[in-house]
Amino acid sequence: MEVIVGGGIVGLTIAWRLSRAGRAVTVVDPAPGTGATHAAAGMLAPVSEVTYTEEPLLRLGLASLGRWPSFAAELAADAGLDAPAVEAGRGVDLRTDGTLDVAFGADDLAALDELAAFMAKLGLPVERLTGRECRRLEPMLAPSVRGGLLAAGDAWVDPRRVAAALLAALERRGVPLVRARVTALLREGEGGAVRGVLLDQAPGELRADGVVLAAGAWSAELADVEVRPVKGQIIRLRSPEPLLSRCVRGTVHGAYVYLVPRGDGELVVGATQEELGFDTRVTAGGLYELLRDARELVPGVTELEVADVVAGLRPGTPDNVPYIGPSGTPGLTLATGHHRGGVLLAPLTAAILLGEEPELAALCAPSRPRAGARVEALEEMG
Amino acid sequence: MEVIVGGGIVGLTIAWRLSRAGRAVTVVDPAPGTGATHAAAGMLAPVSEVTYTEEPLLRLGLASLGRWPSFAAELAADAGLDAPAVEAGRGVDLRTDGTLDVAFGADDLAALDELAAFMAKLGLPVERLTGRECRRLEPMLAPSVRGGLLAAGDAWVDPRRVAAALLAALERRGVPLVRARVTALLREGEGGAVRGVLLDQAPGELRADGVVLAAGAWSAELADVEVRPVKGQIIRLRSPEPLLSRCVRGTVHGAYVYLVPRGDGELVVGATQEELGFDTRVTAGGLYELLRDARELVPGVTELEVADVVAGLRPGTPDNVPYIGPSGTPGLTLATGHHRGGVLLAPLTAAILLGEEPELAALCAPSRPRAGARVEALEEMG
Repeated sequence: MEVIVGGGIVGLTIAWRLSRAGRAVTVVDPAPGTGATHAAAGMLAPVSEVTYTEEPLLRLGLASLGRWPSFAAELAADAGLDAPAVEAGRGVDLRTDGTLDVAFGADDLAALDELAAFMAKLGLPVERLTGRECRRLEPMLAPSVRGGLLAAGDAWVDPRRVAAALLAALERRGVPLVRARVTALLREGEGGAVRGVLLDQAPGELRADGVVLAAGAWSAELADVEVRPVKGQIIRLRSPEPLLSRCVRGTVHGAYVYLVPRGDGELVVGATQEELGFDTRVTAGGLYELLRDARELVPGVTELEVADVVAGLRPGTPDNVPYIGPSGTPGLTLATGHHRGGVLLAPLTAAILLGEEPELAALCAPSRPRAGARVEALEEMG
Repeated sequence: MEVIVGGGIVGLTIAWRLSRAGRAVTVVDPAPGTGATHAAAGMLAPVSEVTYTEEPLLRLGLASLGRWPSFAAELAADAGLDAPAVEAGRGVDLRTDGTLDVAFGADDLAALDELAAFMAKLGLPVERLTGRECRRLEPMLAPSVRGGLLAAGDAWVDPRRVAAALLAALERRGVPLVRARVTALLREGEGGAVRGVLLDQAPGELRADGVVLAAGAWSAELADVEVRPVKGQIIRLRSPEPLLSRCVRGTVHGAYVYLVPRGDGELVVGATQEELGFDTRVTAGGLYELLRDARELVPGVTELEVADVVAGLRPGTPDNVPYIGPSGTPGLTLATGHHRGGVLLAPLTAAILLGEEPELAALCAPSRPRAGARVEALEEMG
């Protein structure tokens, strides 16, 4: 039996895919689906996110995006969601209408042109639009939007629905879910092979043939892995009718802000990126910046009701690429450090652990070289 | 027996004071203390509010402010709060450290000077301060604050604690509280004397010798009274240590914003004023404006945690003065239309109904002349 530590979207996905592959698994999490997954906007946007990422991450993202449609369909089936329910928007709300990246000033426009050229070189399907063309696609955009880049292949999903569907699928498959906190890995001697986990409550410990560490930002508390919490705050607004038909993002006041519309009229505004340790407070300053920037992109958001404000902790790594695969310690596999890409990369992560993607596995192997990576990451954060 | 319709701070106060005076009362409210009282900041600030009010309201406010200390002490005693509890800040959190009204630009400063002169003429205790003096009193104020006006006599209280104490005092006195909605007044014939209330659930109706209408913004649904809902949104922030030692307010972007510190470290930021009917949605635009303006007054608020966001409906009247006293219809007494002053004016309202303030009663008599009042009020709202 294998233990999956962590019931976020990554851990739950691994448990579900391993179980479908015939392996005995147990998930351990004190409160599944309430961490970064609960706060995530759910953009599946490897193309429009290419600006901030390196090429390895783009390759991983594109590969995982390609897996999402069949992943979502199989998940809906395993979770017992029938076709009418999925069609009525009660599935995981996978939408594939693309992401529109918009620009306000001359500098932003120049950056968009550069990005469009870079994407063309990579053979990525993007389209450069004028301000008028942007507003034709999305009439609620601010009149001051001067141009945009449409990544038609980008998609998005509702991470809370995905987590709920995964929990339902696991229950239907009879996969045990232990609602406890893992306090330490159970090892054979000092620094030896991992043989299970210690829990903060009964049964006290779980012995296992192997442990998959998918504990997100908390992973470094359990193993020697360079993962740090990167706080993100989001706002969920409620709209009587949808303001947008696709994801919209842009740089406002030097910070990226995005708006993700859901099928039920919800509009998610995200997200701050703060390096504050294990701090999950929703702050006045975080809300202020999100609301200010969202207003500049789409002035009509001011009329919308605030449904929810929430903060989560992304698991950041020095090179922004997750650690997926053998840890180097016998019995311990890593599936953590997904940073902003946990929802996007969940299907690929499970596929890598099942040996389906040997080439991509090398890109996110925990043993990969990463000299100087931290410096680059810090420079990138500016 | 008399029925009090409405379990906000005004209705509960009336019930408590009438009961203490030996009268049999029953309070009817589907959810006491959850309306405007729940959203109120609790400023007892007749002096610093003098700018937006007419002189009658100032006189009412000063009289009621004078009643607050003994009112709070008697309430704590009747509610069973012992002296150590009150001293430890678990009372109604009445604080008397004054309100500081600050100005940023030359126009604001000129307005402060005018206001100071007006207050001096009225014999009100205010002190004109330089920007440096303001920051000496409140070091967290923005460096751009150029001057201020200290109304040392102004006070504030926690309205949620007041409502809780009133409910406890009523329970200890054995005053019945019927958790139902009043659907109509029970009348003798068409437009005749009021003899009780009809309820939306069992017991269906309550017969009474008299009815006091203290239903706030909903009063006009039950009687012919010119009260309209004026929406206010507030944000409650949580501070590890107090940022301010007194209420601070100022005009930012043409709108008044205030910050009210509580004994437990909470900081209330309020409040929007919106004429949108019975709309209690917390909106992106409302939060944005409050956060933006609060940041300008006290930049340090950005670090604080958002504990709560809430909207309430103030009961506005054409001349901003409440209706307190006989309605003109036998059996029906009014105690509504307190607009921004419900918390401040609650003690006086009960005193007027007990006949203790005949002179002030004339100012807020429902039968008062108010020709042209609506025009003035509209002009004032700009």
